[in-house]
Amino acid sequence: MVQCRSMVSRPGPASSTALVECVPNFSEGQRPEVMDAIQSAAESVHGAMVLDRHADAVHNRMVLTIAGSPGPVAEAAFRATARAATLIDLTSHRGVHPRIGATDVVPFVPLGTTDMQLCVELAVRVGRRIATELELPVYLYGEAARTPARRRLPDLRRGEFERLQADLPTNPHLVPDFGPARIGPAGATAVGARPPLIAYNVTLATSDLSIARKISRGIRESSGGLPAVQARAFRTADPNVVQVSMNLLDTRRTSMALVFERIREAAAQHGVDVLESELVGMAPAEALVEVVRQTLRFGQLDANAILETRLLENVLGR
Amino acid sequence: MVQCRSMVSRPGPASSTALVECVPNFSEGQRPEVMDAIQSAAESVHGAMVLDRHADAVHNRMVLTIAGSPGPVAEAAFRATARAATLIDLTSHRGVHPRIGATDVVPFVPLGTTDMQLCVELAVRVGRRIATELELPVYLYGEAARTPARRRLPDLRRGEFERLQADLPTNPHLVPDFGPARIGPAGATAVGARPPLIAYNVTLATSDLSIARKISRGIRESSGGLPAVQARAFRTADPNVVQVSMNLLDTRRTSMALVFERIREAAAQHGVDVLESELVGMAPAEALVEVVRQTLRFGQLDANAILETRLLENVLGR
Repeated sequence: MVQCRSMVSRPGPASSTALVECVPNFSEGQRPEVMDAIQSAAESVHGAMVLDRHADAVHNRMVLTIAGSPGPVAEAAFRATARAATLIDLTSHRGVHPRIGATDVVPFVPLGTTDMQLCVELAVRVGRRIATELELPVYLYGEAARTPARRRLPDLRRGEFERLQADLPTNPHLVPDFGPARIGPAGATAVGARPPLIAYNVTLATSDLSIARKISRGIRESSGGLPAVQARAFRTADPNVVQVSMNLLDTRRTSMALVFERIREAAAQHGVDVLESELVGMAPAEALVEVVRQTLRFGQLDANAILETRLLENVLGR
Repeated sequence: MVQCRSMVSRPGPASSTALVECVPNFSEGQRPEVMDAIQSAAESVHGAMVLDRHADAVHNRMVLTIAGSPGPVAEAAFRATARAATLIDLTSHRGVHPRIGATDVVPFVPLGTTDMQLCVELAVRVGRRIATELELPVYLYGEAARTPARRRLPDLRRGEFERLQADLPTNPHLVPDFGPARIGPAGATAVGARPPLIAYNVTLATSDLSIARKISRGIRESSGGLPAVQARAFRTADPNVVQVSMNLLDTRRTSMALVFERIREAAAQHGVDVLESELVGMAPAEALVEVVRQTLRFGQLDANAILETRLLENVLGR
């Protein structure tokens, strides 16, 4: 290199921390005062930041994005869950989205270069605490699941709150991982760990929706495509283009770069160009770094190569 | 998108901050107690983190990487400069690297989506303070330069400390932007603003150094290649490969993606493959995001799309 490559380096500050995200879903998307109270409970913890709040009145559901150091994020998730349990009554809740509890699902997600195992441990700790202190049934799911049957949320939520209300006391398959085998107005909560989810769209320079449909079928896991990819075809506001709209459930298994390349190749076979990519919401550093690693052939590259990530870990670690 | 695309979003916390880096160079690379004292001065400011320290005994020079919010980073740079002025005597300093002062150069660098203009303002503020409180001559350089002759550091440093000592009082071209037109044992300081510098290497699958030399000549700005690119050819510890070793001085003008593609094409013309890319040290989020933007054809994408960057801005903004 051109300057200073021979210089002696000294490591940065010793104190740095893991980074995690928690994206709890609450069964309330209509009453602003209830949503505000739950968000306030999460925001009351120093070291945990509420970066985003999405609410949907038809789903009657709210999603918070909390991020920071593991301890504060776990505390924020617990406080929000405790608040929701006092404010939401599942016996009168209606919405089109499947749900089993006032706090329906609490996923912990590793950020930066944090290990999944740390998020599994957080899920177990917070799940046990929800069971003990709030006396709610808790199911561990995702990477924290203790049986394959509880790994996937759709399996866990089959029949929803109403089925648990009817069958939990008598059906041995429904016995929770933590907490009582009985159900109250706050329902049950699924607590787990999963990789970051990325909402990623690719726009095609054609008005022919059937081409986007074919490409979506070709890449989504459920049709035998790429692992950890959900995909659907959509029209957009612009009648001259169509979109392949995706959830990437684990970019370590299938990266944005691979998905883009597959769509580009498939579109080319129909004589169609890829116009552009689009992220819906934010993406974790690791998913973007993985694109750089693959496209520029880095031998090694992770989120710690990003100055801002290192700064964040140091700031939170103090 | 597959879920929740219709949901109503609420912005995150209102308090967020700009992010900056400062990479001051000090004329001391031998005495650990002096280097520690200067580093401690920088570390004494809450909200500024010293992420890295490089020292070289032959250059007799130390480089700190400080990052955080603008105010604390500016304060840390000033305190380190003040400490260096009391501990380093340029009249007895020897080293192979050109230098004009105890604190030789203080560059402010925008991180995240921060504007260059903010760093220019920081340079002016800190430069004026160094001049007033420490009574040192200060030259504004880089993006903060007030004349083209002071834009480039090599021009500013021509003749070094010894020339300033001899000519500063009488040569009108040497009158500083701030501070006295006389020089003491702490010398003068260049304070400025510049884009992030990225140290980037590309390894080629050949033992023929002449190929790396030709490619380096083809891409570096000084030979008529790509803007803001410095490049040289090197052998590595592995005798079967050679390396094109670069400083990218402004990845908004020439991105890592463009550099990689040009090297790949040029190597292919010699029948040589690109083996891998390598970063020396860290890169700012924006430089990596720019690679993703170009390779995956994002219409819009910046460092704010990274969850960790948003979290950092919020944490520092509180």
